[in-house]
Amino acid sequence: MAETNAAMHPPLEGIRVIDLTRVLSGPFCTMMLGDMGAEVIKIETAKGDPTRAQGTLKDGFSWYYASFNRNKKSLVLDLYREEGKRVLERLIEEADVLVDNFRPGVLAAMGFGAERLKKINPRLVTASINGYGSTGPYVDRPAFDFIAQAMSGLMSVNGAEGTPPMRVAQPITDLVAGLYCAFGIVSALRARDLNGVGQHVETAMMNGAISMMAYLASEHLATGQLPERTGNDHPLVAPYGLFAARDGQIAVAPSNDVILQRFLNALQLGHLMDDPRYDTNEKRFARRDELSQLIDQALSNGTQDEWIDHLNAAGVPCGKVQNLAEAFNDPQVQAQEMVIEVEQPHHGPIRMLGFPVKLTGTPCKVARPAPLLGGDTRDVLAEAGFSGSEIEELLEASVVRATH
Amino acid sequence: MAETNAAMHPPLEGIRVIDLTRVLSGPFCTMMLGDMGAEVIKIETAKGDPTRAQGTLKDGFSWYYASFNRNKKSLVLDLYREEGKRVLERLIEEADVLVDNFRPGVLAAMGFGAERLKKINPRLVTASINGYGSTGPYVDRPAFDFIAQAMSGLMSVNGAEGTPPMRVAQPITDLVAGLYCAFGIVSALRARDLNGVGQHVETAMMNGAISMMAYLASEHLATGQLPERTGNDHPLVAPYGLFAARDGQIAVAPSNDVILQRFLNALQLGHLMDDPRYDTNEKRFARRDELSQLIDQALSNGTQDEWIDHLNAAGVPCGKVQNLAEAFNDPQVQAQEMVIEVEQPHHGPIRMLGFPVKLTGTPCKVARPAPLLGGDTRDVLAEAGFSGSEIEELLEASVVRATH
Repeated sequence: MAETNAAMHPPLEGIRVIDLTRVLSGPFCTMMLGDMGAEVIKIETAKGDPTRAQGTLKDGFSWYYASFNRNKKSLVLDLYREEGKRVLERLIEEADVLVDNFRPGVLAAMGFGAERLKKINPRLVTASINGYGSTGPYVDRPAFDFIAQAMSGLMSVNGAEGTPPMRVAQPITDLVAGLYCAFGIVSALRARDLNGVGQHVETAMMNGAISMMAYLASEHLATGQLPERTGNDHPLVAPYGLFAARDGQIAVAPSNDVILQRFLNALQLGHLMDDPRYDTNEKRFARRDELSQLIDQALSNGTQDEWIDHLNAAGVPCGKVQNLAEAFNDPQVQAQEMVIEVEQPHHGPIRMLGFPVKLTGTPCKVARPAPLLGGDTRDVLAEAGFSGSEIEELLEASVVRATH
Repeated sequence: MAETNAAMHPPLEGIRVIDLTRVLSGPFCTMMLGDMGAEVIKIETAKGDPTRAQGTLKDGFSWYYASFNRNKKSLVLDLYREEGKRVLERLIEEADVLVDNFRPGVLAAMGFGAERLKKINPRLVTASINGYGSTGPYVDRPAFDFIAQAMSGLMSVNGAEGTPPMRVAQPITDLVAGLYCAFGIVSALRARDLNGVGQHVETAMMNGAISMMAYLASEHLATGQLPERTGNDHPLVAPYGLFAARDGQIAVAPSNDVILQRFLNALQLGHLMDDPRYDTNEKRFARRDELSQLIDQALSNGTQDEWIDHLNAAGVPCGKVQNLAEAFNDPQVQAQEMVIEVEQPHHGPIRMLGFPVKLTGTPCKVARPAPLLGGDTRDVLAEAGFSGSEIEELLEASVVRATH
């Protein structure tokens, strides 16, 4: 419970990560390692991570790329050439972590299979994020968030009643697999402290998606029944969902009888809990349309904001459905600094999401903005022990590239 | 890259976690710590975690509870009483981690504020999972997944075109906040190794939800425009989504022109990429209904399974929309052991989700099934140094309870 203390070392200080990942799941994972103080060396091709050219570019810089690559260095390296592979080998010798999000087998085909990596550096923690895992019949399939959502069962429960299965709008199978991998990597680093040797960490988009099924999974496994799509309604509890205040809807989630009683009391409908038509969840569920009308009627004498203040004060979880602009301008979100502004040299300030993990002693910070393509090539090689003339030769032969 | 080795110590061996959490976000977090080898001591009230009575009970045991509480011990402790608080204090003296998912301020009101915890055990890593964070205007509000989804902007992008915002069916704000917290705790443990002192970790359901917004957030921040709900269609790319094979739909995600060319070639529609009506993404997006019809027509000469094999072999990410039964019986999911069976003493086998983080050297395992309520009370107290007569006194006074 130490206070923030500039003298404290961040969690991953001294950890060097060689980052072979691109686009989303991998860069999200390694960004979290960088946010925790690791030195992340992002290896890019001459064209750079595809996200450098995706989404809106402002003043020549992609805000999508910027928001997933803060706290990283960029080294442009041609891994199709033997000289490039030798550079990677030397980097791995001195590294703590190697992360890739290739399909299983690609890294080995490049000459960096598990056995060789262990020989190069037995303390190395290696980590892979892929679509389906590295064993099983689908190991060679290409993966994508939408497909992992489809196959995992995630889509089958998402959507409104009576409508087809629907994907979740956020690329959550990428993000969740990346987050699990960051957790696995830090865990494996701690195991290395105990054992003296590294090991391999693997997470898959499909497995991560399945792990999000929570009680939907346990209910299915217990009963064999398939969960139905219920949109904003709770599959088992009523009342629950969106209700109409005078000037708009509010979301209310009375998840148990105690909270429901508070909610109904606040609406001066407390007597309904004793009404033989509504005195059990089963009865309320069967008459939920009727009950919703009574609630909407009671809510119509106040505004959204009035009811949200009143109900929260009464201990009833509720809030407005907000769009991204409303959410990012919400005073709570601002107090939590969940949108931050990072000065991008030569490109002005870039706004991006903040840190979801708050640490009091060693808070996450932006130690460096997203790198220019090859912006750290010379520095990284010099720190890795390459001589000035070696670096010039590699540049001359376009095995590596540098922006300056 | 060590092989699995029984002599290797798991990542969190020797780490003792005092777990004050209940229901979902917190138990999910501490289960991950337990899966990584920590000793997790779950403190329960005499009634137990509410999930013990939720979902389907088989032979008296909740599969919901079982699936979130493996690898934990249960100690029943009355924290409303001074004697109970003294027991907690003694447990904290010897612990490494204390986790709660109370509203901010509740733990301090119980007498365990930050300063006191630091005095009891300066090496303690404390962690809180809450709804909105512990600073800002909403700090006292009760939280719930549905509300965090509504307020964070998550719902605003989820849903079909022309329909209202819709929640994601999975309780992802609970799970993501729990997962971030597990990552933060292991990171803080590593910082403790460097600094000699603990610190506080905090994650919030609202912040976790916002962090999942990915490129939807960066695009909004760059342009000021609000993302639209597009259901299963990609907001920017066409073709993309669900298409009709002879016996059912397949999900196809050609995320760039290279993959799209492969997809169209496989359908013998490769020429469309040169057709002036379809030769840019903009044109394809404008004529996506027309294009979908051409694709459906080409797909009609094969079955789902035939096309899925053929397209994956051609490097096109695709798959079936599966319900939970299909997903859990999928040979890939079985190969990845994402559904496991745990023998629950006195209650028979319980099926639950497996481990999303795969470690080669020290794989996660079920070292113990979910505990009986108070099943470890005596053992935990004895290990914490309570004498036999102290334990009997505490039991006698119902400060603690034990099942045996």
